[in-house]
Amino acid sequence: MTSVVSLNEMRDMIERSLMRVGVARNDAEVCSKVHAESTRDGVASHGINRIPRLVDYIKRGWVNPRTSLSLIHSLGAIESYDGEFGLGVGNAMLATQRAMELARIHGVGIVTIRDTTHWMRGGSYAWHAVEQGFSAIMWTNTESCMPAWGAVEQSIGNNPLVIAVPGDPVPLVLDMAMSQFSYGRLASTAERGESLPVDGGFDIDGGLSRDPKAIQSSRRLLPMGYWKGSGLAILLDALAAMLAQGRSGHRIDELQRGSGTGCCQVFMLFDPEHLGGRQMCNDLVDGMTSHLSSLAPDTPDGSVRWPGASTFQRRVGNSHRISVSDEVWQQVRMLAGA
Amino acid sequence: MTSVVSLNEMRDMIERSLMRVGVARNDAEVCSKVHAESTRDGVASHGINRIPRLVDYIKRGWVNPRTSLSLIHSLGAIESYDGEFGLGVGNAMLATQRAMELARIHGVGIVTIRDTTHWMRGGSYAWHAVEQGFSAIMWTNTESCMPAWGAVEQSIGNNPLVIAVPGDPVPLVLDMAMSQFSYGRLASTAERGESLPVDGGFDIDGGLSRDPKAIQSSRRLLPMGYWKGSGLAILLDALAAMLAQGRSGHRIDELQRGSGTGCCQVFMLFDPEHLGGRQMCNDLVDGMTSHLSSLAPDTPDGSVRWPGASTFQRRVGNSHRISVSDEVWQQVRMLAGA
Repeated sequence: MTSVVSLNEMRDMIERSLMRVGVARNDAEVCSKVHAESTRDGVASHGINRIPRLVDYIKRGWVNPRTSLSLIHSLGAIESYDGEFGLGVGNAMLATQRAMELARIHGVGIVTIRDTTHWMRGGSYAWHAVEQGFSAIMWTNTESCMPAWGAVEQSIGNNPLVIAVPGDPVPLVLDMAMSQFSYGRLASTAERGESLPVDGGFDIDGGLSRDPKAIQSSRRLLPMGYWKGSGLAILLDALAAMLAQGRSGHRIDELQRGSGTGCCQVFMLFDPEHLGGRQMCNDLVDGMTSHLSSLAPDTPDGSVRWPGASTFQRRVGNSHRISVSDEVWQQVRMLAGA
Repeated sequence: MTSVVSLNEMRDMIERSLMRVGVARNDAEVCSKVHAESTRDGVASHGINRIPRLVDYIKRGWVNPRTSLSLIHSLGAIESYDGEFGLGVGNAMLATQRAMELARIHGVGIVTIRDTTHWMRGGSYAWHAVEQGFSAIMWTNTESCMPAWGAVEQSIGNNPLVIAVPGDPVPLVLDMAMSQFSYGRLASTAERGESLPVDGGFDIDGGLSRDPKAIQSSRRLLPMGYWKGSGLAILLDALAAMLAQGRSGHRIDELQRGSGTGCCQVFMLFDPEHLGGRQMCNDLVDGMTSHLSSLAPDTPDGSVRWPGASTFQRRVGNSHRISVSDEVWQQVRMLAGA
């Protein structure tokens, strides 16, 4: 069962639920905007659905609602911050803003955060950046959620990577975790009694499997592209920790404070104004998407896909009324004291 | 049949073959070092095996042996160059050197090249960088070699991505193309009458396939991670073209000058000295590889893999005597006039 609510109603309820656990109004506004817009964009799993868990983390003291970024080090276009286990969404949005300011001056702006907390949906910051006309590479490391290639034990993170290039009107925005599927996708596929469309992990005997329940049992989620995604996850982890001077994944695991707590994030923004101009960038993206649109699809009713296209459609389509699970909506209302 | 030759003998022969088609001695020295070392590292496909094709491209006028990088634009830590269709390996090595110089000053150094030619093995520049103590993100766009997700026609490039973090003694070095397998791997697997270990593409009817011959026929190579690798290839293409102010993949295709000609490359180097110090970086990489080494393998005789480990072993093991296909060695000797 789902409820249909307006974006503003959702923002208001999230804001109130966060303020009730000590988040300042300004910070609650930023977080509620990000969570509600992710829900509108079709990513409820990292939008409103995460509010009960976030409130729980704040109550446990895993997320500190009353701190912000503290500068460790600055050199020209690079700034490194300590996140002090503050609100991941607020920290990430501040970092994005700051990296844009640096990019306006230097062409590139690089902001890193160590000891921050879950940024929820990485794409939020990339959409924000492209809407201001910036290109972006952003990523985070995470606690371990799948085995490194050749291992049994969960030992590498999902380490979502976000890359975006602005266009007019449609940008290219990739928001991609290193596992082929998320545990959320396994759960929803299992609930419907279906199989995954391609291999999603290993069963308990070490065989590749499309059975979501078998993978839930083994906890052996598959990196996208098998050994390739494993390698990319390891390097994103290492480079994030090196640039942010923070924890790599296995040291995040040691904290034992849930999902994302203590991670490193990198925000690398580029200003097209310093790199050939905005028009050249728009023409580039338009040329690429026009070319992709012109290709014959592989099935009669299929279409050629590129990153950002369907989210852009959803952003336009869902702008006024948003569907949300009844159960989640009631939980958030209760947390808000409504 | 293979010949065994020394690194110096191989370098000498490659150098002579390039000088015979108009490459200056200095440039031939750089190229021969890169090609010979790639062969020593176990990547003959992008090492000595490419020399006959490179000589052919020079003869056709697709690669200009007598030009170098020309500066388009410079702003602090960023420099953009035109490669003028010069030697891709020489251009890439110059760009790496220059990005290291910039990173020594600014913490980060970003050098882009447009209208350059095939850099052969991206890992060459990353190994060079980590050996000087730098972290790196480097990538190139390429001509189309596989269908975008949902398309039939070849419409996205292999767009190899290289990420590296220095360690002591073993660094982490990832060198990863966006297809699950290369056409070279399809050919060698087909020759042995074997199947690929996992899906490698589509057959002529659009079904996922492990049969290398079926994929060679359809020309529908699979992106790693299915839709994920397709998305990453598209964004790497767009961001390379945007940063380098050059051609995206479909405009490289229009040139019709073989593999890599007219591509864009990005060299992003980071100096750990400005980011917590070299010791912190070494400790990070050592901590990660120690952790990975400590994990139980998924088969009794297996081992946990991470990027760079096996290449590092090969670099040590092969340092004096290198195996090379007899056929290739005779071709290169002939091109060298030996």
